[in-house]
Amino acid sequence: MYFGWDVAELDLPRRRFARLADSVPLGVAVVGYGYWGPNLARNVAESPDMELKALCERDAVCGASFSQRFPGVPVRTELDDVLNDDSIDAVLIATPPATHHALVKRALEAGKHVLVEKPLATTSADARELIELAARQDLVLMPGHTFVYSPAVNAVRSLLTDGVLGEVYFITSARMNLGKYQRDGVVTDLAPHDLSILMYWLDEPVVQVTTTACTVFQEGVPETAFMTLTFASGTTANIQVSWLAPRKVRQMVVVGSKRMVQYDDTASDEPIRVYDRGMDLEWDAPANFGEYQLTYRSGDVIIPRIDAHEPLALELGDFARSIRTGSTPRSNAALGLEIVSVLEASEASMRRNGAPIVIGPARDKVAA
Amino acid sequence: MYFGWDVAELDLPRRRFARLADSVPLGVAVVGYGYWGPNLARNVAESPDMELKALCERDAVCGASFSQRFPGVPVRTELDDVLNDDSIDAVLIATPPATHHALVKRALEAGKHVLVEKPLATTSADARELIELAARQDLVLMPGHTFVYSPAVNAVRSLLTDGVLGEVYFITSARMNLGKYQRDGVVTDLAPHDLSILMYWLDEPVVQVTTTACTVFQEGVPETAFMTLTFASGTTANIQVSWLAPRKVRQMVVVGSKRMVQYDDTASDEPIRVYDRGMDLEWDAPANFGEYQLTYRSGDVIIPRIDAHEPLALELGDFARSIRTGSTPRSNAALGLEIVSVLEASEASMRRNGAPIVIGPARDKVAA
Amino acid sequence: MYFGWDVAELDLPRRRFARLADSVPLGVAVVGYGYWGPNLARNVAESPDMELKALCERDAVCGASFSQRFPGVPVRTELDDVLNDDSIDAVLIATPPATHHALVKRALEAGKHVLVEKPLATTSADARELIELAARQDLVLMPGHTFVYSPAVNAVRSLLTDGVLGEVYFITSARMNLGKYQRDGVVTDLAPHDLSILMYWLDEPVVQVTTTACTVFQEGVPETAFMTLTFASGTTANIQVSWLAPRKVRQMVVVGSKRMVQYDDTASDEPIRVYDRGMDLEWDAPANFGEYQLTYRSGDVIIPRIDAHEPLALELGDFARSIRTGSTPRSNAALGLEIVSVLEASEASMRRNGAPIVIGPARDKVAA
Amino acid sequence: MYFGWDVAELDLPRRRFARLADSVPLGVAVVGYGYWGPNLARNVAESPDMELKALCERDAVCGASFSQRFPGVPVRTELDDVLNDDSIDAVLIATPPATHHALVKRALEAGKHVLVEKPLATTSADARELIELAARQDLVLMPGHTFVYSPAVNAVRSLLTDGVLGEVYFITSARMNLGKYQRDGVVTDLAPHDLSILMYWLDEPVVQVTTTACTVFQEGVPETAFMTLTFASGTTANIQVSWLAPRKVRQMVVVGSKRMVQYDDTASDEPIRVYDRGMDLEWDAPANFGEYQLTYRSGDVIIPRIDAHEPLALELGDFARSIRTGSTPRSNAALGLEIVSVLEASEASMRRNGAPIVIGPARDKVAA
Repeated sequence: MYFGWDVAELDLPRRRFARLADSVPLGVAVVGYGYWGPNLARNVAESPDMELKALCERDAVCGASFSQRFPGVPVRTELDDVLNDDSIDAVLIATPPATHHALVKRALEAGKHVLVEKPLATTSADARELIELAARQDLVLMPGHTFVYSPAVNAVRSLLTDGVLGEVYFITSARMNLGKYQRDGVVTDLAPHDLSILMYWLDEPVVQVTTTACTVFQEGVPETAFMTLTFASGTTANIQVSWLAPRKVRQMVVVGSKRMVQYDDTASDEPIRVYDRGMDLEWDAPANFGEYQLTYRSGDVIIPRIDAHEPLALELGDFARSIRTGSTPRSNAALGLEIVSVLEASEASMRRNGAPIVIGPARDKVAA
Repeated sequence: MYFGWDVAELDLPRRRFARLADSVPLGVAVVGYGYWGPNLARNVAESPDMELKALCERDAVCGASFSQRFPGVPVRTELDDVLNDDSIDAVLIATPPATHHALVKRALEAGKHVLVEKPLATTSADARELIELAARQDLVLMPGHTFVYSPAVNAVRSLLTDGVLGEVYFITSARMNLGKYQRDGVVTDLAPHDLSILMYWLDEPVVQVTTTACTVFQEGVPETAFMTLTFASGTTANIQVSWLAPRKVRQMVVVGSKRMVQYDDTASDEPIRVYDRGMDLEWDAPANFGEYQLTYRSGDVIIPRIDAHEPLALELGDFARSIRTGSTPRSNAALGLEIVSVLEASEASMRRNGAPIVIGPARDKVAA
Repeated sequence: MYFGWDVAELDLPRRRFARLADSVPLGVAVVGYGYWGPNLARNVAESPDMELKALCERDAVCGASFSQRFPGVPVRTELDDVLNDDSIDAVLIATPPATHHALVKRALEAGKHVLVEKPLATTSADARELIELAARQDLVLMPGHTFVYSPAVNAVRSLLTDGVLGEVYFITSARMNLGKYQRDGVVTDLAPHDLSILMYWLDEPVVQVTTTACTVFQEGVPETAFMTLTFASGTTANIQVSWLAPRKVRQMVVVGSKRMVQYDDTASDEPIRVYDRGMDLEWDAPANFGEYQLTYRSGDVIIPRIDAHEPLALELGDFARSIRTGSTPRSNAALGLEIVSVLEASEASMRRNGAPIVIGPARDKVAA
Repeated sequence: MYFGWDVAELDLPRRRFARLADSVPLGVAVVGYGYWGPNLARNVAESPDMELKALCERDAVCGASFSQRFPGVPVRTELDDVLNDDSIDAVLIATPPATHHALVKRALEAGKHVLVEKPLATTSADARELIELAARQDLVLMPGHTFVYSPAVNAVRSLLTDGVLGEVYFITSARMNLGKYQRDGVVTDLAPHDLSILMYWLDEPVVQVTTTACTVFQEGVPETAFMTLTFASGTTANIQVSWLAPRKVRQMVVVGSKRMVQYDDTASDEPIRVYDRGMDLEWDAPANFGEYQLTYRSGDVIIPRIDAHEPLALELGDFARSIRTGSTPRSNAALGLEIVSVLEASEASMRRNGAPIVIGPARDKVAA
């Protein structure tokens, strides 16, 4: 599990106790019923560990849609009605990124555990403030980096931690589709998925970011970007994100010294293919230019069977476990803060025409 | 057809006349029978327009292999024996890059037309010298950028020039495999393919290059690199090249305003897939943040039938036509020089840790 | 829409009137909450046109699972409690095939409209009895041949009816997976899907069936079968069904005089591929054996975009429409009876070691 | 290796000795330079074990095409010129099926070893005559069932003989394309490939054949057929062959008790996929219908690396080895005769509208 650099620098109290007996379902409210809220509500309703207590939503059409599927569950238009309800232990916030900081802050101040959609906040300063507040309040604050619960992502992580892939040489990622325009740009919209997966896989921080943006429609809001990340150990990753591609692409490739794995999230049956490498290294006599000679031979392909569990159900289970036992969730706030920091560095690189931005020093200032 | 900036700055004489009657086959010698030479020899033998006159090769095993397949065609160990043979009109050079400049120069000085494998030379200065020499000698000098003869590459070019794709938003390319280690590094080895295809498609020069290299085995010889190119019109391309991937990847994606095309050179049956875009742009009222709203809808996919002609046979045909008629071959020396220039800029970027390198100014100095 | 031969021979009263105003949702009960029942219940709950009034289920575990997802909806263990409930207009029966006849009969006698999972009944005599009873009671009786509502199946049907495929030469179908053993054998379990799709596509009855069974485990219960059907117009179809294949296969190919279409139900993104044929027929001089010369040339492939509607939701909509307006549903009882008749002929062929069975005459006896 | 029933019944002399020293290349002539002849000639030319001595071909255009590629090798228009040439040890016959019997007979009588394209002859009586003649002359007679030399076909055979697949439950095969019309019909044209592969895999004879033909264009010459074969052990196979499908299909599936293998000859990179089965058999208490309960679970997929050797080169090597050492070639005349016998039975089934034809008894007559 990944714990970022940034949080280690904060002096946070540890969580003291679990709040609830296992036998009592958690009371949960969903805030926002737009694109992602319906998935949250459905998973809460199907969880034996949670009880759907309310929706908070001001849009009447969205509210009516909720009522058709969950007759009997109240729809509130005021957040305070939810925050003042003692039967509600936790809120799941699925509103636009710009609203995250304010809503999360109110919920934590009201004593509610919070699961908030990614990104945790729009600035690393805001993210740190929320983390410190949650720690003081002894509440769980969890960003919804759902991909770290994906069975396929976890299968790749096992290949890495079990040494099946060997030393990681490099990683590529392509995440494209016809995207809904959002005013924060494609990097903020899509790259958090790549970043959460990469940090979860590699267990180490990003130390340099280079991002070249490509903007067709509106100045300052790139729809396509190419990012090159350098991790602390020297491993590099290349990320391509775009809203402009009519074919949905969700493909990551990890090339290791022993094997290569290709993860294609759109190939529902066979998301993972492991390619055996047959490359043998031979060191030739110095007379012969001192070159390494790599013979090429490639081997078998294995497509492991991947369970079909819904990542969001696993994420909610982790959230509940964290509330009950004080455990740190896999998608934890430290990871969320780290991702926000990389996004900030990426913005800086885009402003400087793709110049490399080193990440380490920027953190020190905050810790001081 | 692409003609680079660099050559336009040189003051070259135009070719004056075709040398040979159509009815006489061109006498051709192949120089080097390693990886690529056998393909050249076989295509010459099968061409009704050429006659295979000799092989020049010092390695006895390679020479014997040639003799088994082409009994009766002489194998020479001295280049001069080929260059002094009046029945030979042209030489096809398939030797290591470091030897190109010297061998091409000798052949041109001896009055032979030359087709030389990519890259044309290892430095842009050498390339310019060869171009000027060929012009003075009134001989054809052609680098072997074979991909510009690929039927699939040309099908994509037609989609571009016919307006089927619309305005080009961006291009991605991934070219990976388990590669034979070469002391010039992966960029010099593989990127010329991407560059020749991109320049042929876009008909415009590269103005900025950013390259991040990843080196595992031997300092100074990267096996993996991520390149971001900016073309004169602002179009960007992201290229991933690697020798370390056990699965062969040859995939390029062009995303345009009307359609997207995916070209996968390993999918022999169906190398090209055209994705219809259904994206409609709507400008909302300014009150609503002045954002563009992109609805997402994607359309049909079309897999056009592509002819199965061998690109190398078409390349040799273009070489012969150029010799006979004075036409400029599609894979011309100006394109070859341009590619060498981008490789030089890419080297500079790698040395500066991925900093963006602007290409234009560097050229002026040379031309002066 | 397909109406079978058999029903034409029955003298049935026409449906007289629609029972309900559009504004009142239909009261619906689900009978059986095993494999398919949860899908029925979920779709009823999500339909604005229906109201889920009750579940009838004797298994306590299944009942508890229902209650978790649909709190407030009663679970009955006695069918009569459902049939005597006046707020219930229709029942959806998802119980084992052997129980269909008795349960459907009781429901129709109680005045309820019925949607019953395939097959309509286990014998054609039973199916005819139910059809006549529904007609006398002026009630809708609909078997759940869900595939005729699949958007991909309907896209193929449009290609056929619009003449895009041309004259149909032949059809193949493969439907395999690791199946749950059922005592009726694989033909009864899987072939109804193929039969419903083929009859819906071709709009004509089957006149001959040849079925070779392959039985590994238990005498009389084949797990694999190969069927060859001849339709009235002479079109043939080959069907492969098996419970023993570890890879799920759902593939049908229709070869027509103009184009071929491949429908792969496991390829969720791209279920349909249309292959353009370039075959030209030439009649040579009689001296030359009077043979047709077929040149081979194949053309483009088109992958049309298919909507993602859930077939079961469309099926329930058709059921509701039929109840309200008296329209004949696409998956109608006549189609259901026809399928049962072909299954009977297929059984006869298997008993005779794969001998061809002609279907027409067998029907006459019943009609007399 | 498969040796058919039929040949066991013939009383044939054994081959007595090898004719040639290993150091002397075999002198070989190719007869016929139409569709397949160029492949034979090229492979002979590239084999260090053979020397291409002549082509026999009456068509001037075909002859000229040969001369361009093999300057110096004579083209004969009279077969006798080849048969009387003492430097020629063996002939490779690639002419239409109807000519096989006469040409093979003349070659054997002239003392030449013979490799003849499939089928060995058009009737089993003719095939038997040729086999007896070759035995009397002490010459190799080999039909060209090239697929038994395919590395992918042999990989599947290894999976079978090594017990990886377990007991074979059933096999399916689909072999379709836009075919060149031939007056013998699609079964004679395409099914020999399926039959040779199936017999090579299963090592046992066919005992029953059911074939339903589908004829669109010319009475008596089906372009599509569906065959069901029963082998001696009870294993069944379903074969679909057609000339009318615009997409080339070459797919065979072997379902075994442990694993399933899919062999797709058009997927050049990954022709074989092995699917692990996770099916567990449980015998329930008799009260519960005495049914087997098969739970369904499916496992990993493995795509083994397959060597890229050209099957025809391996076939010619086997032919040469057989001539030199007296070994029986993998594609032997007994296999060729067996295939002709199954084709005859298939014709009989088609004439009787798809009735099952038992194969055993027909053979006895000949042996008597």
